[in-house]
Amino acid sequence: MAAVNALIRTRMASEHAPRIPEVTAHLVEAGGKRLRPLLTLAAARACGYAGAFHVHLAATVEFIHTATLLHDDVVDESTRRRGRPTANLLWDNKSSVLVGDYLFSRSFQLMVETGNLRVLDILANASATIAEGEVLQLTAAQDLATTEAIYLQVVRGKTAALFSAATEVGGVIAGAPEDHVRALHTYGDALGIAFQIVDDLLDYTGSAEVIGKNPGDDFRERKLTLPVIKAVALADAAERAFWQRTIEKGRQEEGDLETAMDIMARHGTLAAARQDALDWAAQARAALEVLPESDLRMMLQDLSDYVVSRIN
Amino acid sequence: MAAVNALIRTRMASEHAPRIPEVTAHLVEAGGKRLRPLLTLAAARACGYAGAFHVHLAATVEFIHTATLLHDDVVDESTRRRGRPTANLLWDNKSSVLVGDYLFSRSFQLMVETGNLRVLDILANASATIAEGEVLQLTAAQDLATTEAIYLQVVRGKTAALFSAATEVGGVIAGAPEDHVRALHTYGDALGIAFQIVDDLLDYTGSAEVIGKNPGDDFRERKLTLPVIKAVALADAAERAFWQRTIEKGRQEEGDLETAMDIMARHGTLAAARQDALDWAAQARAALEVLPESDLRMMLQDLSDYVVSRIN
Repeated sequence: MAAVNALIRTRMASEHAPRIPEVTAHLVEAGGKRLRPLLTLAAARACGYAGAFHVHLAATVEFIHTATLLHDDVVDESTRRRGRPTANLLWDNKSSVLVGDYLFSRSFQLMVETGNLRVLDILANASATIAEGEVLQLTAAQDLATTEAIYLQVVRGKTAALFSAATEVGGVIAGAPEDHVRALHTYGDALGIAFQIVDDLLDYTGSAEVIGKNPGDDFRERKLTLPVIKAVALADAAERAFWQRTIEKGRQEEGDLETAMDIMARHGTLAAARQDALDWAAQARAALEVLPESDLRMMLQDLSDYVVSRIN
Repeated sequence: MAAVNALIRTRMASEHAPRIPEVTAHLVEAGGKRLRPLLTLAAARACGYAGAFHVHLAATVEFIHTATLLHDDVVDESTRRRGRPTANLLWDNKSSVLVGDYLFSRSFQLMVETGNLRVLDILANASATIAEGEVLQLTAAQDLATTEAIYLQVVRGKTAALFSAATEVGGVIAGAPEDHVRALHTYGDALGIAFQIVDDLLDYTGSAEVIGKNPGDDFRERKLTLPVIKAVALADAAERAFWQRTIEKGRQEEGDLETAMDIMARHGTLAAARQDALDWAAQARAALEVLPESDLRMMLQDLSDYVVSRIN
């Protein structure tokens, strides 16, 4: 991870435009869990990789992630991220859009350096899936007809696609057998879904200190996340009117967030979504059983517990 | 070009998010000159390429271009493009940002399909240079200390990098000798600079019908383009105060655009910038002399006249 961080620092520089490292450093140095690059490193080593390109791929994955965060905060008009004001607030939307584009391009430069066409194919496809998921979320947002299936599709796009690409390219660069590469993909996909469900739950149940942003943001932004989708499916007439007013029409009043929490508690949808997250984490763990036993396989499997530990 | 257009139409589709082809079609079907993909096709064929991947590369280049237009219009808060309302106006900034990201990713998928690592390297570098140029423009904007050298750097980034990549990859995919590849790069670079100077001139001297957007936009957005930079360098005290008020401080009043035009006419900076464009176009033409004579070489050379014809 030290090598990944060093590479990230080197490649986020720009000779000509000092605004670029300023904006990037703000986000990169705020920490973040560096979960995605860790997945790539661990997946490559778990498959016996002895080369150095997994560091490039890990930095690639983190750059793609950072670029999407910059653009997400513009799209969501967010003001806090990782416990700090967002870049779009500190600088402006323009800087966030363009620096995000720069990091995307840098990520492609990094992956091209590996010279591995299959890896390029996986990461290019993941990038397209991420953007598609974000657009789908944009149009599905505020629409009470959004089903759990659509939610899953959005989550697979905006979150799980990068997780599964991160683990899959680790296996590919290591030249692992096809069933191991497939297992790593399945693991990353399930882990990413668990991760996003947890994130969506914490938006309702977490404290600002734990989640590094303002709780209730999703409700205020009228996002249909899993506990809400489950609650809408179980709603009586009065509750349905409540969701229509607050989510569909966006006419929110003082106390609405608390009412939303009460409705979800009544139907047990926060607990049900929590169970879904645990199920996906268990699927992630199980997927890796096909890999040879090793400390790194165990670490990846334990990561599935870590991801859901925030709601346990 | 018919094959390129067909590929663009196929690849701009999205199974899951209909917003994507809507936004893309709005821009793609508005026409545009398709100059960049034409450069790639002609460069490849001028180097004797007999394969089919130049179509992929041409579509790649057009997707990168379309993605940057979507993001540019968000950054510049533009309202008209190619004679139509911009996507950010018709839909919203969010859609423009995310659909731009999608097209970027699609462009990488297309180039990966060629399986040519050198081509990938050139296009990844061009993408990074474009984003860097845009950020540089953002920070250089409104700063009267901007020199012609900085202007050239911005233009090389935001415009010429894609022109030169478009022509260079045509040569590379054709397996042309190194001096021909270099010549194609030099040609694209010079052509792109000429093209951008013309664009900047037309923003002052063109009519809305010819340029498909509102004339005077650059002035209102306080952009320091070549004729203004030349005028600032020659300004007396009163003129300097005018530029400080209108460009640096952005306190613009009725009639300021006309005054700016008068000042530039007095110093002959519109004519001087026009001469610069003609010089770059001549350099573009000359660069290709090293290529074997052919109809396509001649077409590329004639394109240098076409690019400046809008100000002749």
